[in-house]
Amino acid sequence: MFDEAAVIEETARVRWRLDIGYDGSAFSGWAVQPGQRTVQGELESWLTRILRLDQPVRLVCAGRTDAGVHARGQVAHVDVPAGVITDDGQELLRRLGRVLAPDLVVRGVSVAPPGFDARFAAIWRRYVYRLTDADTTPDPLLRHHVTRLSYRVDLAAMNAAAPILLGFRDFGAFCRRRVGATTIRTLLELRGDRVPSGPLAGVVEFTVRADAFCHSMVRSLIGSLVEVGSGRRDTDWLTGVTGAAKRDSTVTVMPPGGLTLEEVGYPADDRLAARAQESRTVRELSR
Amino acid sequence: MFDEAAVIEETARVRWRLDIGYDGSAFSGWAVQPGQRTVQGELESWLTRILRLDQPVRLVCAGRTDAGVHARGQVAHVDVPAGVITDDGQELLRRLGRVLAPDLVVRGVSVAPPGFDARFAAIWRRYVYRLTDADTTPDPLLRHHVTRLSYRVDLAAMNAAAPILLGFRDFGAFCRRRVGATTIRTLLELRGDRVPSGPLAGVVEFTVRADAFCHSMVRSLIGSLVEVGSGRRDTDWLTGVTGAAKRDSTVTVMPPGGLTLEEVGYPADDRLAARAQESRTVRELSR
Repeated sequence: MFDEAAVIEETARVRWRLDIGYDGSAFSGWAVQPGQRTVQGELESWLTRILRLDQPVRLVCAGRTDAGVHARGQVAHVDVPAGVITDDGQELLRRLGRVLAPDLVVRGVSVAPPGFDARFAAIWRRYVYRLTDADTTPDPLLRHHVTRLSYRVDLAAMNAAAPILLGFRDFGAFCRRRVGATTIRTLLELRGDRVPSGPLAGVVEFTVRADAFCHSMVRSLIGSLVEVGSGRRDTDWLTGVTGAAKRDSTVTVMPPGGLTLEEVGYPADDRLAARAQESRTVRELSR
Repeated sequence: MFDEAAVIEETARVRWRLDIGYDGSAFSGWAVQPGQRTVQGELESWLTRILRLDQPVRLVCAGRTDAGVHARGQVAHVDVPAGVITDDGQELLRRLGRVLAPDLVVRGVSVAPPGFDARFAAIWRRYVYRLTDADTTPDPLLRHHVTRLSYRVDLAAMNAAAPILLGFRDFGAFCRRRVGATTIRTLLELRGDRVPSGPLAGVVEFTVRADAFCHSMVRSLIGSLVEVGSGRRDTDWLTGVTGAAKRDSTVTVMPPGGLTLEEVGYPADDRLAARAQESRTVRELSR
């Protein structure tokens, strides 16, 4: 008997890379959830519809952002049966531009290089957390992506404490734990700057870059620095929390609205496959 | 008989200057309108309440923005009975910060210098109109204050045409006419730049500065330049429209969301009273 399912399985597929931006305010995060408006859900259903596919496509992204978190530099891949997209992806890009709501934009569509995997081939994710404190008048035009604190924070004290968190370590204190998942990560960059001029003048921007993040990690890292910057806690407390590697209830998780996924780093094309293999192995070993 | 009204009239008042910012998306403009949420209405009712005044205060602003138009540098004045505000205004500033909705911010409160009048003492108003065209991927985080065009505009052609509009002239072609009001203005600056980097990278910012504006003037000026930039009209058309000084139905009024009142210019303190007198005379002569 002719096995149709097997034939579908064997259809050659082409992997496409999508570069994506969104205002997370009105999304219940990236990941599909029944009955909720999510970025993945919206994109998958439009892609399936525009490409007239019999089976829904599946998007894999670099950073599964939580509800209310934004992105300028989200990256995803999708495998589409060969021959469905007949140009370099520009027609799909245009058609997405016409149908997507204004809070979701596909910035680019391109054929993924061999070995590309939006999630496993990534070597780092860069987030920025934006906030204003009592020293800066908040700008109402930026309120959707800048968190407003009513008190003053000492940026120099926060930057002095930040190196405590850097490096290869167990970030269990800052993560919502998932059974069987590792919380060991390499934090590459954690630094705050006050924007000197332009439309974001006075806003504090915290850059947080790591090989990968576990759930709520960025917002907990910033929350712990804010504890130090506000004077409520000192660096000894931060050292203790970090060393414990167990979720700490004294760590504040900052509100999602200040957080934006700005950029995802990938290695050179000839290193993509090796990197994806490496990441998969690490995740499996850690189970 | 004791005339209470006359006594109230004669109460010494102190003029305060307020510096204001707002996201105009959810306001029906600056000016009070019955049953509508307006910036003036919101501020007047909170000021009256916080200062526990028997009679509502009246705010006078530099630029009466339309529904949906934003402001970072709006300036207003309010006359408050002497003795009601006993410090330099910082307590009022703090209390406003606690009660106002996040889309409206009072950035500063200070005693106005002698002769100050937010409207009549101003020497110029600077607006910025922000847009993206087909050459720039729109950023969903900025969509509340950047207008998105689906076609391409030739910025060089727009900047080449802009000087046609500069100077002292009758802007009747670009204004919604009000009976008895002059449409003669001095347009001091009209120039577009593509932001080279930072969070607004790729956005076209049109700076529009004039001594004053009549109703819908900024949005009509940008609309006429967009006609030229898109190639739908040429500079001869623009010259003709400008010369006619009569409202022209071929001029497009741009959507309000891209427009922000950025700054209001005032002369040195010793020139304030003279400037206010001058402005009042011009408006009266023109009736």
